[in-house]
Amino acid sequence: MKPTTPKGTRDFSPVEMARRNYIFDTIRTVFHRYGFRQIETPAMENLTTLMGKYGEEGDKLLFKVLNSGDWAAKLPDEELQARNSVRLTNMVCEKGLRYDLTVPFARYVVQHREEITFPFKRYQIQPVWRADRPQKGRYREFYQCDADVVGSDSLLLEAELVEMMDAAFSAFGIDVVIKINNRKVLAGIAETVGAADRIADITVAIDKLDKIGLDGVNRELEEKGIPAEAVERLRPVIMLEGTNDEKIAILRTVLAGSETGLKGVDEVEEVLLHVGESGLKNRVELDLTLARGLNYYTGAIFEVKALGVEIGSISGGGRYDNLTGIFGLPGVSGVGFSFGADRIYDVLTALDKFPAELTAASRIVFLAFDNRGLEFGCKAVRTVRRAGIDAELYLDCAKMKKQMAYANANNIPYVGIIGDDELAAGKVTLKDMMSGEQRMLSVDEIISVLAN
Amino acid sequence: MKPTTPKGTRDFSPVEMARRNYIFDTIRTVFHRYGFRQIETPAMENLTTLMGKYGEEGDKLLFKVLNSGDWAAKLPDEELQARNSVRLTNMVCEKGLRYDLTVPFARYVVQHREEITFPFKRYQIQPVWRADRPQKGRYREFYQCDADVVGSDSLLLEAELVEMMDAAFSAFGIDVVIKINNRKVLAGIAETVGAADRIADITVAIDKLDKIGLDGVNRELEEKGIPAEAVERLRPVIMLEGTNDEKIAILRTVLAGSETGLKGVDEVEEVLLHVGESGLKNRVELDLTLARGLNYYTGAIFEVKALGVEIGSISGGGRYDNLTGIFGLPGVSGVGFSFGADRIYDVLTALDKFPAELTAASRIVFLAFDNRGLEFGCKAVRTVRRAGIDAELYLDCAKMKKQMAYANANNIPYVGIIGDDELAAGKVTLKDMMSGEQRMLSVDEIISVLAN
Repeated sequence: MKPTTPKGTRDFSPVEMARRNYIFDTIRTVFHRYGFRQIETPAMENLTTLMGKYGEEGDKLLFKVLNSGDWAAKLPDEELQARNSVRLTNMVCEKGLRYDLTVPFARYVVQHREEITFPFKRYQIQPVWRADRPQKGRYREFYQCDADVVGSDSLLLEAELVEMMDAAFSAFGIDVVIKINNRKVLAGIAETVGAADRIADITVAIDKLDKIGLDGVNRELEEKGIPAEAVERLRPVIMLEGTNDEKIAILRTVLAGSETGLKGVDEVEEVLLHVGESGLKNRVELDLTLARGLNYYTGAIFEVKALGVEIGSISGGGRYDNLTGIFGLPGVSGVGFSFGADRIYDVLTALDKFPAELTAASRIVFLAFDNRGLEFGCKAVRTVRRAGIDAELYLDCAKMKKQMAYANANNIPYVGIIGDDELAAGKVTLKDMMSGEQRMLSVDEIISVLAN
Repeated sequence: MKPTTPKGTRDFSPVEMARRNYIFDTIRTVFHRYGFRQIETPAMENLTTLMGKYGEEGDKLLFKVLNSGDWAAKLPDEELQARNSVRLTNMVCEKGLRYDLTVPFARYVVQHREEITFPFKRYQIQPVWRADRPQKGRYREFYQCDADVVGSDSLLLEAELVEMMDAAFSAFGIDVVIKINNRKVLAGIAETVGAADRIADITVAIDKLDKIGLDGVNRELEEKGIPAEAVERLRPVIMLEGTNDEKIAILRTVLAGSETGLKGVDEVEEVLLHVGESGLKNRVELDLTLARGLNYYTGAIFEVKALGVEIGSISGGGRYDNLTGIFGLPGVSGVGFSFGADRIYDVLTALDKFPAELTAASRIVFLAFDNRGLEFGCKAVRTVRRAGIDAELYLDCAKMKKQMAYANANNIPYVGIIGDDELAAGKVTLKDMMSGEQRMLSVDEIISVLAN
């Protein structure tokens, strides 16, 4: 009969929170370094804002919030009898929990457009909710960390976003490869093979080269109805290898007949040029199989993969030309990306890369064993706190063993023992919990030790 | 047709977020200084966890989340026809949004009791949701900042919590009075006048002394059925004045016949003694009319009022002896308090006490007017960022006026102008946006200026 959290949701313990805050703080520092500013939007949005923005499947995965009051009284008889859950939901729910940070941001931009000076560089770190079937690594509540710029077409932005990904993962000590692609290049390929509406099929097929080989890819493309002659023309693209420069050269040849495709190649080249000048720690790779968000990205597409860990992408984004059009404000171009905090957590855990001191615990806990000790301890802990050091006094006169267990369980690096000898000397025995070393010191001396 | 946030909810702009983060960071620093560690719980809880914990009115104010899938199909005919919204809600909703941080914390302690080392000092800063009628200063989504300790009876904790309130409001520069009371004292008073079950009535009446005078209070008590003779005996309590010591002396006399009452007086005295030794900046006042949370607090009761601003309490808390009993784990005593972040925001605004530099903006934006300028700017902004300074380059070659407007709108204190003269000299004109002062400097010189 123990109470639990709802399926697919989690509590975070103090140790987990310290690690999560390390991730959020690192990301936040990068966002600030590049001039992004934080906003927050409410957990609930009107369903009119959310519905229809994530496809039919997405609509189903929205958590809907029941209207307050006597909602059942107002339902028409015939609707009740029809028992159509989708229709009834629309009648009994006006609000839903946000599903991502992008649609609420688009709503924010439109709602506050008079107050915003463009280009608007915003970031947002908040939970989102999806009624997905929970499974390993997939939760119904999880945080997204998004940075987007709206109101500028500059390709320098794409380059800056790549720099930001590199800066963040360098700070985490995670080696990554940053993949980039461009929707216009994919469109150019589809156009070139005479199947302009089959971008997705073509990309999916190309992506399987490693698994099924060239013949397999060709067979799949032909099965999808792409003519053999077109498939043949695709060969240099499917087999695309070499440096980014070499890939770009091949694409220029293959896409010579597609204006859109060449525009995409120009964009990729310019972004790579700027990125190349910025001295990244990680490799940037043009990858034509990268096709995330094909239904909304219109230019650059990014994705970050961690090296040395089997896990999906840990960051991604792209350029979208009409973010706010859905809310009646056309012509606002945006580009942005998102860090997957949960996956970064898993990668840092797998690689054992969390900084060791990450516990957000006090630096010291004073232990006393009688009222005189507590009285001395109250003064000692106050003095230490005034010096700007996080500190505690164990407030119950428990046995030494129990108090030590408390220090251990909370990862507190030092204990200050206040026994009879210490009280007689007006000092405290400082014990280093790592080394076991003990010294009797004055409170001021303890402050000097802890301040280091 | 502009999209909006749902009624009673808000967006927070970059400037508002900077101010809110200042409030949260200040509170967090105090929590850490006293050894509290952060947890988070999910936004949604099972309704079995939430229902019945906030009274009948509270149950109505819970936001309930509709079950996913074909929920209407499973409803029995007779329930549909009965159209009883309360009963139907129980059938179509299993989850709700958290209403406060206390009940989820109790659930957390019971669920994770095997992993927790007591005493457990936790804090939590998260939004809560209530389907209240929105009005000025009352929202349907707002943040709570709670610190609680469970698993210790020590009265030193009460004193530490008072110290923490003092530390936080000192850091904010808000002058406050910290009021304390004790449920056992109130129980002793009720017992003494022979109306042990009338604590609330008595407290409400006493609270009106300022407004309706002694005769009015007496009349109200008699109307509530408290005998005239008992009311007469209450007189010293109603008129209670003087220093905390004087009040305690009077209470000792009046409550001489009530064991509970005397226990309460002892507790108040001990807490005040410890608090007195801790050198608070703000006044602490024993106030018998303080009766918040009477239905769950069992010992100390706290409340903080800002001086010089007309606003309700901005912080409050108390001791509760049976937090986790509702979830089947009896005997866990807790004491804690909560900061009202929204009200603190309003007080800081009213008193104009937000630090001036709180905008979380870049320190500098570089302005360029052609591609050569942008190229130079890319290098300059990278160099400045590598020095750990938050910086931007305006990435579109817009007119000077537009770029300056961007710097102003984002409260960026310096601009770095990259025109033809600057390019010729390999330098940047640094303009201080406050003073208007301009100097042509190298990028390294700019770093020196900004690093100060």
